[in-house]
Amino acid sequence: MGNLPFHHDSHETTSAPITKSLDPEELRKYGHMVVDFIADYYQNIEKYPVLSRVQPGYLRKCLPDSAPYDPEPISTILKDVQDHIVPGLTHWQSPNFFAYFSSTASTAGFLGEMLTTGLNVVGFNWVSSPAATELENIVMDWLADMLQLPKSFHFSGNGGGVLHGSTCEAIVCTMAAARDQMLRRIGSENLGNLVVYGSDQTHSTLQKASQILGINMENFRAIKTTKSTEFALSPEMLRLTISSDLEEGLVPLFVCATIGTTATTAIDPLEALCHVAKEYGVWVHVDGAYAGSACICPEFRHFIDGVEGANSFTFNPHKWLFTGMDCCCLWVKNPSALVLSLSTNPEFLRNTASNSKQVVDYKDWQIALSRRFRALRVWLVLRSYGVANLRNFIRSHVKMAKTFEGLVRMDKRFEIVVPRDFSLVCFRISPSALISRDEDGEIGMINEVNCKLLDAINASGKAYMTHAVVGGIFLLRCAIGATLTEEKHIVQAWKVVQDHAQAILNMH
Amino acid sequence: MGNLPFHHDSHETTSAPITKSLDPEELRKYGHMVVDFIADYYQNIEKYPVLSRVQPGYLRKCLPDSAPYDPEPISTILKDVQDHIVPGLTHWQSPNFFAYFSSTASTAGFLGEMLTTGLNVVGFNWVSSPAATELENIVMDWLADMLQLPKSFHFSGNGGGVLHGSTCEAIVCTMAAARDQMLRRIGSENLGNLVVYGSDQTHSTLQKASQILGINMENFRAIKTTKSTEFALSPEMLRLTISSDLEEGLVPLFVCATIGTTATTAIDPLEALCHVAKEYGVWVHVDGAYAGSACICPEFRHFIDGVEGANSFTFNPHKWLFTGMDCCCLWVKNPSALVLSLSTNPEFLRNTASNSKQVVDYKDWQIALSRRFRALRVWLVLRSYGVANLRNFIRSHVKMAKTFEGLVRMDKRFEIVVPRDFSLVCFRISPSALISRDEDGEIGMINEVNCKLLDAINASGKAYMTHAVVGGIFLLRCAIGATLTEEKHIVQAWKVVQDHAQAILNMH
Repeated sequence: MGNLPFHHDSHETTSAPITKSLDPEELRKYGHMVVDFIADYYQNIEKYPVLSRVQPGYLRKCLPDSAPYDPEPISTILKDVQDHIVPGLTHWQSPNFFAYFSSTASTAGFLGEMLTTGLNVVGFNWVSSPAATELENIVMDWLADMLQLPKSFHFSGNGGGVLHGSTCEAIVCTMAAARDQMLRRIGSENLGNLVVYGSDQTHSTLQKASQILGINMENFRAIKTTKSTEFALSPEMLRLTISSDLEEGLVPLFVCATIGTTATTAIDPLEALCHVAKEYGVWVHVDGAYAGSACICPEFRHFIDGVEGANSFTFNPHKWLFTGMDCCCLWVKNPSALVLSLSTNPEFLRNTASNSKQVVDYKDWQIALSRRFRALRVWLVLRSYGVANLRNFIRSHVKMAKTFEGLVRMDKRFEIVVPRDFSLVCFRISPSALISRDEDGEIGMINEVNCKLLDAINASGKAYMTHAVVGGIFLLRCAIGATLTEEKHIVQAWKVVQDHAQAILNMH
Repeated sequence: MGNLPFHHDSHETTSAPITKSLDPEELRKYGHMVVDFIADYYQNIEKYPVLSRVQPGYLRKCLPDSAPYDPEPISTILKDVQDHIVPGLTHWQSPNFFAYFSSTASTAGFLGEMLTTGLNVVGFNWVSSPAATELENIVMDWLADMLQLPKSFHFSGNGGGVLHGSTCEAIVCTMAAARDQMLRRIGSENLGNLVVYGSDQTHSTLQKASQILGINMENFRAIKTTKSTEFALSPEMLRLTISSDLEEGLVPLFVCATIGTTATTAIDPLEALCHVAKEYGVWVHVDGAYAGSACICPEFRHFIDGVEGANSFTFNPHKWLFTGMDCCCLWVKNPSALVLSLSTNPEFLRNTASNSKQVVDYKDWQIALSRRFRALRVWLVLRSYGVANLRNFIRSHVKMAKTFEGLVRMDKRFEIVVPRDFSLVCFRISPSALISRDEDGEIGMINEVNCKLLDAINASGKAYMTHAVVGGIFLLRCAIGATLTEEKHIVQAWKVVQDHAQAILNMH
């Protein structure tokens, strides 16, 4: 790594520490240095193993036991970033990163976050920085438009949107709204009787949010899904489960429908689920964390058909809309339910604008009081790329996933485990690849073989993928979505898979 | 504002939109442009009215109704930031910002956040980016050292620390740990009997966290404080309240002690409160959001004496340790209680390192699953300034507060309402200033007069202060802590106060 541009220049460009806590000219000078550091990082990103190879505890050995008493130069610190931090990174922005779902960085997202950090205002209520609140109102309406969300989720339709950091935070807030709305009706002593519904494919965030909110974990339902329905939550099963809970004297509260599950991007049938939920007065939250972004393309929009029946909707632009971490969009039809659960009105925050009720005070739409000027980043992304290019970026990922899928299908040793809808390809070495080699081969061993394959791919440093287990099947997930990924990386990644598969099959 | 450097250059430096979603050379070019924009903003920050003068809804009139279809150049967007966003900002980084508590930006904090955003890794567990977790372990131990927290809060003492975004998030997590620990012992059907304690000066975040966690709001105790004890929570009152709750069959759960309350920086007597809490098995959380930072100076450390008796401790480096938004440090003595409440173990995140139990998976120490590489910013601040300069920065704020306090005391029309401990001065026009003018003057009118004074100061654009009401007294808060504030700004601000006070007194 001695050839990274930063290292050449470091000793020339600075040797003294920063002298002031905040000074425009120092910020300019060192800001340019860090921009160059980051640009160089991206130039060199393919040189690093995607999955970090460090061992637990590696960093304590590199760094002193306590903070320095005297200031240190930025050049020294950046050298340590290069020498000690970069090797400990798993490179999410590598074009060879296919794990989890991507966290899509972009030039515009980076610039937007620089502005947020540079202005460093706090937008807990309108008056504390009106632009922070108003721009958020505006971009949330823009995004709602792009997704063709019904008017009832727009501010102009008496709904509204807010930027959170994560889905879990958003679900805590919406479920608190649902819980308190219900308990106001039936009495708070019934908290222990409330029931929350998802499927066995719903993100673990639903369970975590339920735990935090004091839902009795015996009343948390992870309804079983099956391969025959592509791991989607069945409306009939939901109805049966609700009926059975009602018979037990429990109170159905909240159901989370997922558009694009984490394991396999399964699509819960939104319209039918909302229909069932409505019958029983159950709050419907739609989690479109990953696939929501795709719905800005007309050809994918149908996946959220029925969203007009939901009470709240989230998706994460940090996953697939090029904002970088962390950004979760939440819309609700009934903001006053949120505000009733989350508002506090301490004296020190009272002001004329809030009293007038003409403004949004986002502190009452989230867990924290304080909040950054989150909307700037989203605004820069939307404007810098325009809807046209954002659609193009998403389509190019889907196209690359089709390429990868095609490569898998052409190789008889492999199989696609579930149909591909977006940019995630779920595949594995086929049981038949084992059986063909050994008539007595155990099919049960297939999971172990695929697990070995995954480890081998990731140990190569040339690609990083993760796994899922659905219906007892261990599968490899090739999640295409890193901003820098191009067709050639897909072809390379498939070559890595094939090479390691052959080595493993040779041993079995 | 036409003389801002950015405007001169904008049309020359760029006219085309960004072409790629992420490209090192585009990031470099536009990154430099945005660094210059921010440096210029700081150069010109004193030209803006501190409190924004826009009216509700102003921004909708400036921006289009929907996101652009085609990409727009960064230069166009930055021009809109200057023309439409900057006027809608309340300038938290202005040296004339004395409202709330400051949100201290710094050059090093800015650089650290740029690195976080540039690398854009996700650190939900160790393996997803080992450096993100390990650096956080290290800086939390460094900070614990700087604050002389007992060994039991360090990782090496089987405690540990984590970076959250806000105090509310941290209290939700610690109170969930306390709640679930208690309910495992007494049964979850007792949730409705748990009691949470604070004072009437405790930050509203305690109430919000309690609401979110399903604490019965009838069991939320805001114990009354008085001027005679400088608005501190009385250990005797805590004991009496707990005893009375026990008599009612309720279960005392959690007390929040504050070191430096929001209204007046009151100091709850930590050692005595911990003593009472221990007797009854109540979890003690210490909220040092603002004043915690000062405790890195030996002369202020005594304010957290007794912290060894607490279960958890938070302070916010974004308030007074120069990190910028958003950053809250949480330490706990018993991480496993946190993890028991917040952990989820979905298949897709399983990995060898986590299974080995040799690593920290921070997803189980917070609400969200995803998390940014938060520690980089703190690390850059600690190293760039060193403990020496960080103490100097804090001391210079305290010194300026003393200057302001001295100016207030020299003017007989004014009074200091509560003693000053840190960099917040609580003052008002003295009732005697009214009475001396008119023998029949109503003392009750004094709050109205001070409210008018505050509005006049803020409308001037030359300073922004906020208020508190304690013991029926409306007071003005001059919270010194903006990074750019110098002695001259204090003198100017006092002149603004005096001028407007005279005008108001002339009318009464």
